[in-house]
Amino acid sequence: MKNLSAKYGKDMLVLRRNKEENTVIKVKGCVIGQEQIVAVAGPCAVENEDMLKETAFKVRAAGALILRAGAYKPRTSPYSFQGLGETGLKILARIGQEMNMPVITEVMDSEDIALVAEYADILQVGARNMHNFSLLRKLGKINKPVVLKRGLAATIEEWLLAAEYILAGGNDKVILCERGVRTSEPWTRNTLDLSAVALVKEISHLPVLVDPSHATGRRSLVIPMAKAAIAAGADGIMVEVHPEPEKALSDGEQSLTPREFSRLMRELEEVARAVGRRLR
Amino acid sequence: MKNLSAKYGKDMLVLRRNKEENTVIKVKGCVIGQEQIVAVAGPCAVENEDMLKETAFKVRAAGALILRAGAYKPRTSPYSFQGLGETGLKILARIGQEMNMPVITEVMDSEDIALVAEYADILQVGARNMHNFSLLRKLGKINKPVVLKRGLAATIEEWLLAAEYILAGGNDKVILCERGVRTSEPWTRNTLDLSAVALVKEISHLPVLVDPSHATGRRSLVIPMAKAAIAAGADGIMVEVHPEPEKALSDGEQSLTPREFSRLMRELEEVARAVGRRLR
Amino acid sequence: MKNLSAKYGKDMLVLRRNKEENTVIKVKGCVIGQEQIVAVAGPCAVENEDMLKETAFKVRAAGALILRAGAYKPRTSPYSFQGLGETGLKILARIGQEMNMPVITEVMDSEDIALVAEYADILQVGARNMHNFSLLRKLGKINKPVVLKRGLAATIEEWLLAAEYILAGGNDKVILCERGVRTSEPWTRNTLDLSAVALVKEISHLPVLVDPSHATGRRSLVIPMAKAAIAAGADGIMVEVHPEPEKALSDGEQSLTPREFSRLMRELEEVARAVGRRLR
Amino acid sequence: MKNLSAKYGKDMLVLRRNKEENTVIKVKGCVIGQEQIVAVAGPCAVENEDMLKETAFKVRAAGALILRAGAYKPRTSPYSFQGLGETGLKILARIGQEMNMPVITEVMDSEDIALVAEYADILQVGARNMHNFSLLRKLGKINKPVVLKRGLAATIEEWLLAAEYILAGGNDKVILCERGVRTSEPWTRNTLDLSAVALVKEISHLPVLVDPSHATGRRSLVIPMAKAAIAAGADGIMVEVHPEPEKALSDGEQSLTPREFSRLMRELEEVARAVGRRLR
Repeated sequence: MKNLSAKYGKDMLVLRRNKEENTVIKVKGCVIGQEQIVAVAGPCAVENEDMLKETAFKVRAAGALILRAGAYKPRTSPYSFQGLGETGLKILARIGQEMNMPVITEVMDSEDIALVAEYADILQVGARNMHNFSLLRKLGKINKPVVLKRGLAATIEEWLLAAEYILAGGNDKVILCERGVRTSEPWTRNTLDLSAVALVKEISHLPVLVDPSHATGRRSLVIPMAKAAIAAGADGIMVEVHPEPEKALSDGEQSLTPREFSRLMRELEEVARAVGRRLR
Repeated sequence: MKNLSAKYGKDMLVLRRNKEENTVIKVKGCVIGQEQIVAVAGPCAVENEDMLKETAFKVRAAGALILRAGAYKPRTSPYSFQGLGETGLKILARIGQEMNMPVITEVMDSEDIALVAEYADILQVGARNMHNFSLLRKLGKINKPVVLKRGLAATIEEWLLAAEYILAGGNDKVILCERGVRTSEPWTRNTLDLSAVALVKEISHLPVLVDPSHATGRRSLVIPMAKAAIAAGADGIMVEVHPEPEKALSDGEQSLTPREFSRLMRELEEVARAVGRRLR
Repeated sequence: MKNLSAKYGKDMLVLRRNKEENTVIKVKGCVIGQEQIVAVAGPCAVENEDMLKETAFKVRAAGALILRAGAYKPRTSPYSFQGLGETGLKILARIGQEMNMPVITEVMDSEDIALVAEYADILQVGARNMHNFSLLRKLGKINKPVVLKRGLAATIEEWLLAAEYILAGGNDKVILCERGVRTSEPWTRNTLDLSAVALVKEISHLPVLVDPSHATGRRSLVIPMAKAAIAAGADGIMVEVHPEPEKALSDGEQSLTPREFSRLMRELEEVARAVGRRLR
Repeated sequence: MKNLSAKYGKDMLVLRRNKEENTVIKVKGCVIGQEQIVAVAGPCAVENEDMLKETAFKVRAAGALILRAGAYKPRTSPYSFQGLGETGLKILARIGQEMNMPVITEVMDSEDIALVAEYADILQVGARNMHNFSLLRKLGKINKPVVLKRGLAATIEEWLLAAEYILAGGNDKVILCERGVRTSEPWTRNTLDLSAVALVKEISHLPVLVDPSHATGRRSLVIPMAKAAIAAGADGIMVEVHPEPEKALSDGEQSLTPREFSRLMRELEEVARAVGRRLR
């Protein structure tokens, strides 16, 4: 593990040995990678303006700092809801402004980077695109932070090297996000790998978020896994919240209600304090 | 997931729906499965009396309640150190008595159950024997607690059904222990599955320990993963501690020094309190 | 991979570099590990004498050389059919004698080795016991061939070292059997790893069988996978056959009918010839 | 498995139940998906014109019908050789024309589709882009065949649905290619899943290739796995061949020499005949 730089014949920008201090990312008053734990929350997809506004209002009241919602959705089937596209981006940007929250949304195609960057404060690369090197390379050329989710079966080495593609292009604002890897366990959607979080925090200076919603796929596991993530050293969490999960167009089973999200935030505060961090 | 009992045509003893209250196991004054978090610590193997005594003395001083050490070691190669056998059992029992700590040790063969039960307070089934149904069935007939580690690639369902083998035999003192599953990640020995812990606590009444040492195989990850385990809802941890890890006959790379273990216990206390538990 | 012997400080008996010529195992006139491909067939479990006799008669007529059936069944649930035990062993031995076929059956407990060895010509270690080192060590002391199935998530290295436990004990009659490993693919029971077969044939002198029934769990895949196994270099196949699969007490979904087995044998003959082997 | 169409609320174009007869793809005189087994061969990457010409000449002489080589290479590290890009495409097209062989090359970015389609006869989607839905959707709009490799940890269902993205767009010329999935086995690069090939041939009408080079990562396993693939029902193989593997800029360890490729073709012919197919 120690010889990543030697293996690839280059000092890896992503490694702590090349940059000791933590990377801290500031966006519209939010700070990611310092003492404060950052909670990113919102629905899986932008479904309509009212629903997004209601969700944003409630998660902000509970303590979320950043709003997330998808306009372009990577769906297994071409016949599933694919997101509202540019319309969704516009709604998201508007609500973000109204609520004074920075917004995160996914970009799935290198052709869409300019468009998405126009509306989003932070661009997200989904797990299914972590190995889309062409997309990564082009994200190295923009001047906005990028959340890079770990691939479905990506090793930690590959995840760090995917980040290196962005850093090498000149964009040093990369936020890693662990969201579970595929295993043979069928009772959870994926297997959340918190040891990867602790290990990445040890060897890299980049901030790391954890997404317990996609990792587990089960509402009842989101709260304990969010707490475990912070105890393991994560810099924040990314959680799906929907006002009426049973009516969600996607990912309803793993979405918290706003009330559950409030409970999560209260419990998380205790854990954050126990590891020398704070939520507010 | 909900229909385990229907699937196997039997009300599963292991499920909370058949026994709502948590199973609490008491052994020599220690209580597993209640408010107090239990720390089990000790070297991978009984190497000799002095080393075990020193380790036991130090981990007890730091707050460990139970002593662990192997006399029979499941080793990949027939040419690796296989443990001291009965000699090791005797040393372990003696030190346990001197230190007034209950002791846990592994039983690998159904023929050895009586012997191991003579010396140990709690018998352990290792990950490699989780599917050794013959061993499980015979452990259902003894009157001592059993720690049942999750198999290398066992699903949660299989793990619970392995416990069911013991419960069905009449022994209701089963303690589950998550120790990581195999994935394609090479930088950690296994991938610790804390969502399995939270899920098992939800659907079963059995206490659950977490072994971050075998799960990660890396000393630096043991502390963050132990804290994450407690945050996720585990009832205790099981940690390898060796006075001189670099000289250990096995598992040196993942063993904490006694000093590191003390630090772990101090940090764990904060996390325990944050989730409404206590360490002492 | 090359340094197994160095890694464990011992010349590995299992490696071809320590014994160049193929190990050939002869049992009651059958020869395993030479030019002839060996077909092992029979029901998952001994259910009763009539059914076993009918199956044996039909698979022998189609070209099977060895009869397989379980008397002790490793079942996930303690409430599933566990096999007929000694009664099953007796039935199996009797039918084997009548049909003049050597018989293979599983041993699950080191305490049962003597009993099983009394009735069986070849003892089988199932995938769930591949890491039961105590069982392996004791099988090193008997004078009968042992079929060693690969563990559910065992690496090739671990599989070879499990064989080494038996060889190191003095029993050099080990037959390896690939039966699929666990992956995240839900449409097949396991993922058959034929590259492991080719690799093991390259580096070890031991004969290798393939069990396409347990590997795939789907009747329709047994024939193509059996053919692929022989093309990959396997020395034989092990297939579940049941006169009425839909009434089988276990594994009905993956059992061939006797008629399908006959078709398999005809098609296999062509493939065997194409790779310089023969079936009869 | 049976209810894919029901699950996604749409008759799946990819399924045999919606189109019984095999899809046959014709490109420059080559026919994929009929009686003849198709061998696709060539170096990992276009390194220079001379090397590609030599390789093409030799693999064609041995019986390869289609030439493969990468101009855009998906590399884990941004500092590894990334391919010659458009220069590589031009060289590849020129050699293809000279040799009268159709050429396959990978497209990694939806922005490059038009360019790649100008030079290539068949476009390839690599394993790392199987979930790049934006790329897939755009490939549904072109009029050239697409080879769709299975993702690193993709289920068969996801692989078929990725093909469905292309088919739903109007391009019915999809060729699937199995190239191994990730497991915890470290001695092979991936684990080749031939049961997926047999299962896909059963439920889909699309032709299926197998890439034993990327699947195994070991030269010595390419020949046995190619033979196993054909025995399992694959319609062809895709193999890396390099005149001097030890000097290759990428994937040298798994490339066959032209002489080894000739041997493969001779041996494959026997296996093809054994399963009622032919190589020439």
